[in-house]
Amino acid sequence: MITLLTDFGLRDCYVGVMKGAIAQIDPHLRTVDLNHNIPPQDIPAARFNLLAAYAYCPQGTVHLVVVDPGVGTARRAVAVELSQGFLVGPDNGIFSGVLQQESAIAAVELNNSDYWRTPTPSRTFHGRDIFAPAAAHLASGVPIQKLGSTIDSNSLVTVDLPAYSIQAEGITGSIQYIDGFGNLISNISQSALPEPAANWGVLLKGQTIPLRQTYGEVASGQLVALIGSHGWLEVALNGGSAAETLSAQFRDRLELVHLGR
Amino acid sequence: MITLLTDFGLRDCYVGVMKGAIAQIDPHLRTVDLNHNIPPQDIPAARFNLLAAYAYCPQGTVHLVVVDPGVGTARRAVAVELSQGFLVGPDNGIFSGVLQQESAIAAVELNNSDYWRTPTPSRTFHGRDIFAPAAAHLASGVPIQKLGSTIDSNSLVTVDLPAYSIQAEGITGSIQYIDGFGNLISNISQSALPEPAANWGVLLKGQTIPLRQTYGEVASGQLVALIGSHGWLEVALNGGSAAETLSAQFRDRLELVHLGR
Amino acid sequence: MITLLTDFGLRDCYVGVMKGAIAQIDPHLRTVDLNHNIPPQDIPAARFNLLAAYAYCPQGTVHLVVVDPGVGTARRAVAVELSQGFLVGPDNGIFSGVLQQESAIAAVELNNSDYWRTPTPSRTFHGRDIFAPAAAHLASGVPIQKLGSTIDSNSLVTVDLPAYSIQAEGITGSIQYIDGFGNLISNISQSALPEPAANWGVLLKGQTIPLRQTYGEVASGQLVALIGSHGWLEVALNGGSAAETLSAQFRDRLELVHLGR
Repeated sequence: MITLLTDFGLRDCYVGVMKGAIAQIDPHLRTVDLNHNIPPQDIPAARFNLLAAYAYCPQGTVHLVVVDPGVGTARRAVAVELSQGFLVGPDNGIFSGVLQQESAIAAVELNNSDYWRTPTPSRTFHGRDIFAPAAAHLASGVPIQKLGSTIDSNSLVTVDLPAYSIQAEGITGSIQYIDGFGNLISNISQSALPEPAANWGVLLKGQTIPLRQTYGEVASGQLVALIGSHGWLEVALNGGSAAETLSAQFRDRLELVHLGR
Repeated sequence: MITLLTDFGLRDCYVGVMKGAIAQIDPHLRTVDLNHNIPPQDIPAARFNLLAAYAYCPQGTVHLVVVDPGVGTARRAVAVELSQGFLVGPDNGIFSGVLQQESAIAAVELNNSDYWRTPTPSRTFHGRDIFAPAAAHLASGVPIQKLGSTIDSNSLVTVDLPAYSIQAEGITGSIQYIDGFGNLISNISQSALPEPAANWGVLLKGQTIPLRQTYGEVASGQLVALIGSHGWLEVALNGGSAAETLSAQFRDRLELVHLGR
Repeated sequence: MITLLTDFGLRDCYVGVMKGAIAQIDPHLRTVDLNHNIPPQDIPAARFNLLAAYAYCPQGTVHLVVVDPGVGTARRAVAVELSQGFLVGPDNGIFSGVLQQESAIAAVELNNSDYWRTPTPSRTFHGRDIFAPAAAHLASGVPIQKLGSTIDSNSLVTVDLPAYSIQAEGITGSIQYIDGFGNLISNISQSALPEPAANWGVLLKGQTIPLRQTYGEVASGQLVALIGSHGWLEVALNGGSAAETLSAQFRDRLELVHLGR
């Protein structure tokens, strides 16, 4: 199985062309669309969408991610092997969320043109000519080492977030993604949360926001913090956009704190 | 084969995550997207879209429908067996269109956590943790009775429409769906129409609208009644939105009447 | 494998219904979405999208194209066999781009109702009742001649573009498609371009636009000509819409000329 995650949108046939390029290599491979509406060139959004989806895919899944503002420049084209599957795409940080949770078994630069669709790939559409073929070959059982030169997985580009820390009085994190509803998703994981969850709150942009279990536990128009279905602490506005109301942005700091008795 | 019908939209990776959860149970299952752009929480729209599509799917198809404003409340999670296939989703009326045409062979509440993705499902994403796994198990051949307690199919929630009646002088029905073009789709079926169709018309919001065979038989800007490709009597505006022009809404009454010689 | 290319959009379940109709004939057939957001009834856009995608699909692919403003009129429903695969849809010009590059081996009118979904097809949804079943039968191995009467492939409707010519001083062509970004894609192919490409330019709407290799070689807000990933000469505006800036339209003439030393 190959998942596809891109910023191509659905107005053109670029996604279909990548699926055709995959089927040309092995017509029995299955493709699953994760999301093609990543905002154009938005690397942090691609990073989070992949992070949110990869744990729900079967063992051996190949994740093909093409959000590639640097196409045609010197940025590397890479593939990474994990215990659960593979990652294929440009080396620009899109894999850094997953790689924080899973360590790489191997990583290569996709510089063996024998595994490209053509030895003279398009300068602007590596998805079709380099990445989709690499994903198809991996899903068909080609060993990752054949696709190019081994690289140090520690050299892969990372999307940096402000320092994250757990102290006795709470947890300091930041916003790692703002979803289409304006919900602010932090990099504080459910597993890091203190027990019991009662009477904790989030400090963000000068506001103190209560931690609850569902959106509906606050009145319409009120801010609420909760654990989203993705497993991360998020700040939402019941019936509206927390991002707009708070003028909050990617990387903004927040704190989970105890609100007293 | 499993069809997917949701109000998740295509901006996030929720649909892809459900497909991953299905593939984790059986990687050979096929999924087909019916529609992911149901207006948020619009149960009547989900009910009609399922009704319009289910007859065109192969024997044994599992229809997974996740339009679920009551997620996290006491609404039941259910599966229904029909002679043609299965329905899986929340018990909120989304299945009531199909169930008016096909009687249930069996129905269960999805309360056997052995068939959930995890014994502690997300409070907000039962699509991933309860419904997608149930659909995958049914499509893989698990008997419906294993998924939970048998319930009376007559207890399933129904979307109510005003009384429907056939008299000598015509048929009284109502609007069961307004599509993306503003066409008003009634609950009067092609099969109920008198023969010959000539010289009948529809009374709606004080207007008398002629029954024709195609949109093009009236001038641009004119209202026309016809049988849509879905098999229902509908009212359309050639080149515009009948819903806007008539300020018509879901459940509005209409009558099919003979217009005289 | 069957590809789908339509103007149905993704607000309704029409695409899903076609996939159901295909699965009813053979549940093992794979479908791949090329694009369902062709502007309504835009035959030139469908023609170009098919032309841009067909070369990237495996041998034997069936291309099902339903952009069909003439549905219900006397326009023919057709299927065409090529050495690489098959084309199925209305005879209105949507296939004429591919047919300029590949000659037809056989063509039929889809008038054998034994291969329709029903002998009384909908007047408005031939995609479901005639075209999807024809595509499924072809993909399942039914010979094209069984689907209807043989027709002369030279009688298929063509989307006409102004005369195209190659002279010593340059190439005269026209705009064959305007994509979602406002890029103006000409009918001058990469393979027709003189070598070396240096110091050539495009004359369009009174402007002289330099030929470069990437968008980034001109300043933001500047016009640039280049070869797109589809292999055609195009005119783009770095960071904007060339179509708007130039008020350019489908079929507008342009010239590729040498700009002197």
